[in-house]
Amino acid sequence: MSEKVDLLLHTDWIIPVVPENLVLEHHSLAIKDGRIHAILPTVEADQAFQAEQVKQLPGHALMPGLINAHTHASMSLLRGLADDLPLMSWLNDHIWPAEGKWVNEEFVHDGSQLAIAEMLLGGTTCFNDMYFFPDVTGRVADAAGIRAVVGLIALDFPSVWAADGDEYLHKGLLVHDQFRNNPLIHTAFAPHAPYSVADPVLERVRVLADELEIPVHIHLHETNDEIQQSLQQHACRPMTRLQQLGLLSPSLMAIHMTHLEDDEIALFADSGGHIVHCPESNLKLASGFCQVNRLMSAGINVALGTDGAASNNDLNMFSEMHTAALLAKGVAGDASALPAAKALSMATINGARALGLEPETGSLEIGKSADLIAIDLGRLQSQPIYHPISQLVYAAGREQVREVWVAGRQVVSEGSLTTLDPERLLKRAGEWRERIAES
Amino acid sequence: MSEKVDLLLHTDWIIPVVPENLVLEHHSLAIKDGRIHAILPTVEADQAFQAEQVKQLPGHALMPGLINAHTHASMSLLRGLADDLPLMSWLNDHIWPAEGKWVNEEFVHDGSQLAIAEMLLGGTTCFNDMYFFPDVTGRVADAAGIRAVVGLIALDFPSVWAADGDEYLHKGLLVHDQFRNNPLIHTAFAPHAPYSVADPVLERVRVLADELEIPVHIHLHETNDEIQQSLQQHACRPMTRLQQLGLLSPSLMAIHMTHLEDDEIALFADSGGHIVHCPESNLKLASGFCQVNRLMSAGINVALGTDGAASNNDLNMFSEMHTAALLAKGVAGDASALPAAKALSMATINGARALGLEPETGSLEIGKSADLIAIDLGRLQSQPIYHPISQLVYAAGREQVREVWVAGRQVVSEGSLTTLDPERLLKRAGEWRERIAES
Repeated sequence: MSEKVDLLLHTDWIIPVVPENLVLEHHSLAIKDGRIHAILPTVEADQAFQAEQVKQLPGHALMPGLINAHTHASMSLLRGLADDLPLMSWLNDHIWPAEGKWVNEEFVHDGSQLAIAEMLLGGTTCFNDMYFFPDVTGRVADAAGIRAVVGLIALDFPSVWAADGDEYLHKGLLVHDQFRNNPLIHTAFAPHAPYSVADPVLERVRVLADELEIPVHIHLHETNDEIQQSLQQHACRPMTRLQQLGLLSPSLMAIHMTHLEDDEIALFADSGGHIVHCPESNLKLASGFCQVNRLMSAGINVALGTDGAASNNDLNMFSEMHTAALLAKGVAGDASALPAAKALSMATINGARALGLEPETGSLEIGKSADLIAIDLGRLQSQPIYHPISQLVYAAGREQVREVWVAGRQVVSEGSLTTLDPERLLKRAGEWRERIAES
Repeated sequence: MSEKVDLLLHTDWIIPVVPENLVLEHHSLAIKDGRIHAILPTVEADQAFQAEQVKQLPGHALMPGLINAHTHASMSLLRGLADDLPLMSWLNDHIWPAEGKWVNEEFVHDGSQLAIAEMLLGGTTCFNDMYFFPDVTGRVADAAGIRAVVGLIALDFPSVWAADGDEYLHKGLLVHDQFRNNPLIHTAFAPHAPYSVADPVLERVRVLADELEIPVHIHLHETNDEIQQSLQQHACRPMTRLQQLGLLSPSLMAIHMTHLEDDEIALFADSGGHIVHCPESNLKLASGFCQVNRLMSAGINVALGTDGAASNNDLNMFSEMHTAALLAKGVAGDASALPAAKALSMATINGARALGLEPETGSLEIGKSADLIAIDLGRLQSQPIYHPISQLVYAAGREQVREVWVAGRQVVSEGSLTTLDPERLLKRAGEWRERIAES
């Protein structure tokens, strides 16, 4: 007797990511009730299962969806508005004024949709966001069928979202409540950075995060200037300050971390915190080189993120994975640093671990949510195929992503979005361009 | 009276590259006898010209084809065979044995075709190659309709192509003669590197290159080891040796140049030589960081190349341009280093200049060969469009290249090859994979 399942995928290669570096040839994956139900040789699959839907994916690799562990999704509307500028001029003269003028619910709605469309088409099934109106981003993500961790942003300065630290946290708690029972939309506290959030707010974040058992998402040690400023204002480096405030813990996602001393690496490793590496943003803003190889050798879980499209300028996790693997070798001076399989882990399971979602996503394991993608390796640019994982990291492009499922729901089919209307998104992007460019 | 032309292209943006940073909105380009005949506002174009063929390209940018200034095209058949290994183990234990066993005319034929297909699809219209059987690569390139500079390779050690320095040069001269009157296939001397070619051969290369007025293409200062070895064997750094041999000149294309002292940068700038930067290969092999910003500030012409697919692992000039622009900022510690327009110049006109082909290609200028590409910027990943050049360098992918012409011949149409059969290429790549993987 064969068992009923919802969907049965037959493919040339399954790359479950856990265990690392495993490639299963001519295997099939069965999905039932939105979860990964079985992975088995194709020759056994048709007998074992009676599927509602069967899909042949010859020449494709099936792998977990990519996890973009640091985004400011709505900033996609500012993509390419200002490039090639020193960081402070970029922020003070371009990005902050544009945000101050334009950010509102509508901006976040349209920007999040544009970003989500780009992410889904490129094989990203989960993103970890930090921006104003996280409720809007969460609703848009939920409707589009992408998994998201929306950041409950906190800042010292007023914005269209909140007037002060108290209001940021208050509104954040309301957003948390709103998504409490949503299986796709998760929350994290997102105090912007040590230099933009005062001690009392950071302390309350720690207490609330412990209470609600959600992660804390913060920019940390992004630039040398940030460290010098902290030494002047607080007489200690930013990480020391977070340690004093009790924030170094397995709940912490520290973004960037391009400037670390040896004892800081050891301290952070001991804390069990997670680092999100954003290589393209770090390069583009000339922030510094993250010592990925040393961090991983120290046992730190390192995930991967694109950062916002205003400083990248894409939300392309294939490109980010490629850049991460290459840059780690250059920075370590060792061509064997960050091999392909480890880069793939960074972009998947390490992201899940950082977000506290390891039981749910990040790998193709029985019982996990069916968050997965099929990539067509039968393109000339991926030929010949000696090692599929090498092709995924070093040669494939996001345009080879053909099918995407999140929690078993197909959100990209044959390279097209199923939950969002590209024509409408193009129109909205054009309208925002008109408004913003002419201001 | 309107003038007759062969092809008239109407598009949203024309980016001629010369002058740098110019974007012509709603312009048209006319092609006649394989050359760029006119560039003018679209509103005037239909009256001015009567075209054999008219093509509307709404939402597209038209720009010069990309020039990949350093390749080993046939090595595409070894793509991903061995990754994540220290340089010497990669070469000694994997690449050289595979080459020794497999390289022959058939390998070079099939490998070159695969590489050319990938390059054309990705918007590359000219490549500068260094490999065995340059006659085969030249014939394949000519048939496929891509412009190429085939390297007349020279080495100290015997190969299936030639037994010794004399035979390498002799066969090289025959290849040069073979393509002497071919408008698409050019030649350059290609002594592999100072460490693999002895002084007498390098001296003859200099004499012959002067006589034939063709460039010299050589790997130089790729790694620190190369420099240390030269100090031991020749009591001087490799560049000094080339200087003593009279090879530092405007005919020289020095590839990589990741390790340079201040006086070497000044000396090279004075010589008028060209540097080809291969950022992804340099990172992947942990060769060192090329100081692109300093080289360009010193007035050196810096072009861009992917290197072979065994060490990259793609022949993607969009990705290479993106990486070059980002990495230059990181290395310089300056977010304003290598702005988008300069990266675009590196990938086009600077390559033409290095190859001695500036009068023929590398920019959209009247009278130049019609080597050009149309990129669809109307994709979500390129939206919104504040600055088309920024989108090309920082956000676009090669999959957005839709139309490619070389010398007025359309070689990619609506994203498909017109001169090569992808099914046959896939089949051949698969056959080589079987043979090589099982050996």
